[in-house]
Amino acid sequence: MATKRQDRITIADVARRAGVSTATAGRVLGGYGYASEEIRSRVRKSAEALGYRPNLLARGLITGRTKTIGVVAGDVQSPFYASVLRGISDVARAEGFGVIVTNSDERTDREVEAVQLLLEKQVDGLIVAPSDLLRPAHLHAAVEGGWPIVQIDRVVAGLAADSVTVDNRGAAREAVAHLIAVGHRRIGIVAELERSEFPGVEAFVRAVAGGLVPTASLFPSWQRLYGYLDAHRDAGLSVDPGLIARVGEYSVGAGREETLKLLRHPHRPSALFTADGLMSAAAMDAITTQGIAIPGDLSLVCFDDLDWMRFSKPGVTAIVQPLIALGEAAATIVLARIKGECGADRHVVLATSLAPRGSVATP
Amino acid sequence: MATKRQDRITIADVARRAGVSTATAGRVLGGYGYASEEIRSRVRKSAEALGYRPNLLARGLITGRTKTIGVVAGDVQSPFYASVLRGISDVARAEGFGVIVTNSDERTDREVEAVQLLLEKQVDGLIVAPSDLLRPAHLHAAVEGGWPIVQIDRVVAGLAADSVTVDNRGAAREAVAHLIAVGHRRIGIVAELERSEFPGVEAFVRAVAGGLVPTASLFPSWQRLYGYLDAHRDAGLSVDPGLIARVGEYSVGAGREETLKLLRHPHRPSALFTADGLMSAAAMDAITTQGIAIPGDLSLVCFDDLDWMRFSKPGVTAIVQPLIALGEAAATIVLARIKGECGADRHVVLATSLAPRGSVATP
Repeated sequence: MATKRQDRITIADVARRAGVSTATAGRVLGGYGYASEEIRSRVRKSAEALGYRPNLLARGLITGRTKTIGVVAGDVQSPFYASVLRGISDVARAEGFGVIVTNSDERTDREVEAVQLLLEKQVDGLIVAPSDLLRPAHLHAAVEGGWPIVQIDRVVAGLAADSVTVDNRGAAREAVAHLIAVGHRRIGIVAELERSEFPGVEAFVRAVAGGLVPTASLFPSWQRLYGYLDAHRDAGLSVDPGLIARVGEYSVGAGREETLKLLRHPHRPSALFTADGLMSAAAMDAITTQGIAIPGDLSLVCFDDLDWMRFSKPGVTAIVQPLIALGEAAATIVLARIKGECGADRHVVLATSLAPRGSVATP
Repeated sequence: MATKRQDRITIADVARRAGVSTATAGRVLGGYGYASEEIRSRVRKSAEALGYRPNLLARGLITGRTKTIGVVAGDVQSPFYASVLRGISDVARAEGFGVIVTNSDERTDREVEAVQLLLEKQVDGLIVAPSDLLRPAHLHAAVEGGWPIVQIDRVVAGLAADSVTVDNRGAAREAVAHLIAVGHRRIGIVAELERSEFPGVEAFVRAVAGGLVPTASLFPSWQRLYGYLDAHRDAGLSVDPGLIARVGEYSVGAGREETLKLLRHPHRPSALFTADGLMSAAAMDAITTQGIAIPGDLSLVCFDDLDWMRFSKPGVTAIVQPLIALGEAAATIVLARIKGECGADRHVVLATSLAPRGSVATP
């Protein structure tokens, strides 16, 4: 064993002595993110007293050193990330930065590896779609290490990092309100609801009814279910939990099975809201194989606007996410942080739009 | 100026003295790719006589050092690369390798930057979709530097590097023969034919008729045009050059315009063959806006099987490329090279299949 050297003093030691959280100490010492002047002073004095030296190269040396942004995509096969990467790349290139991309497959173990790989490759900053909002120790560690991180699509509660997301809840509320407005009362929702902060959908519905649920750090699917509940509440309609298709495994096959259950329901929904692109493809598959006519037998609104929704006959009414703008915003923020911009964490929420096509009719 | 040091001796100097090409010298010194024992001996003696030392870390030291494969995708927004990346990632992960991805946007200047970025990040090997088959100096340089490179989708003539492609020519021949078999005689093709090894489509058609065109190092679109010509020749049909829509800019807008021209042709084609996913989307857009019925008014076969082709009514008959297998093969080969496998360059050509759906009928 080596003897304990001064540089073994960790950021956690500095934080403890200063009486602040480790994340706060990381931000101050990294020159990144918001902290009051008083806090800054306490942390710096603590670091000085302990003889703290970062075990990584000081962030000042790292900054802009490699002119590379690392991106951890949730699923590089999804059209969502394809467009987001376009936005990120365009902004990065304009500033002379390269972009390298890794994939988490929406699995925490792979995300940990992906973040590790990008940090080894000495990226100057990270854009991450957190796949796990409950155990993000690796993201906290990266923030503490002084790396600027911008979260996209989802937000980890309490992580000292910026974020860019879309207004998932508001968008879903608009989509479902659109169906209610033309007369639908039994509206099904097809959503992946496996990765859960809640013991189950019923508990979530109860908690929402009780006004106990903060939106920001829910997974997008849950935010969209939230919007579905909002729209019902706005219209004074009760929700039949039997119309909430809870897809477990995130796959077309599982989505199709759950949709088929809805379509075989003795008191079948007259309309469906699908909560993302994969679930939309799955639902469409089920609808097509059952020979159900859109919009005659069933109205449909999809979250995410995919190519095939324009080519289908009729076209499919869809929520359009500003994906390129999302990527551009994430890159703009991470570049500003790399260049040393301080100040409070920024949480940008982008508006969506509804593209009305031919898949909605009166029941 | 520094005085000339021994390590300024380049691989080109070694090659000249040995009387071999620079690429061959690179392969021998990199311990990578095929060369006869006699050539190996000459190159090694030349290197020894000149006191050659690679200006990069010797490949033996680099090999497997970072456990990372770098991928240069042509367009990370395309479903083609999405599936290929899935195949690459799965094989790499099974061997404990990470994958980092960059994008060339099908532009040579950006590909040069992307390769440079990946080499700076010390990847152990590269998988590249060459965007320019005519000026690939950066790829030759990387091969000379000792990096294993596997080309995907396209092949640079004379580059000492493995490749994995699909049988584009054979697939297009099958698709067009499928249309001819049900009675079509006027078949349009919509293809991006801007990036050209030929002064133009007419010159290409003449050269093919004269038997002068090697297939391997053509861009995929040209290989598919080749298959279109093959199928006509097989059936004893002449080709009307007016039915070859030459899309310049690679965009949905440009593809739509060229398709509209075909559809407004006084002697309109009774069937269309679209040469890739983007051109298929563009053609479908034009067909939909013109209110043309498939397959009543027009038959359609598309190259690349995209989601929407299954959901369209009727479904669209398509050529299915084994994209995941392509990525898996590329990763398998690059990993073998990284581990020191020698031997001749491997050029793997994968077969495609035709998925018959409802978009083809008798004219």
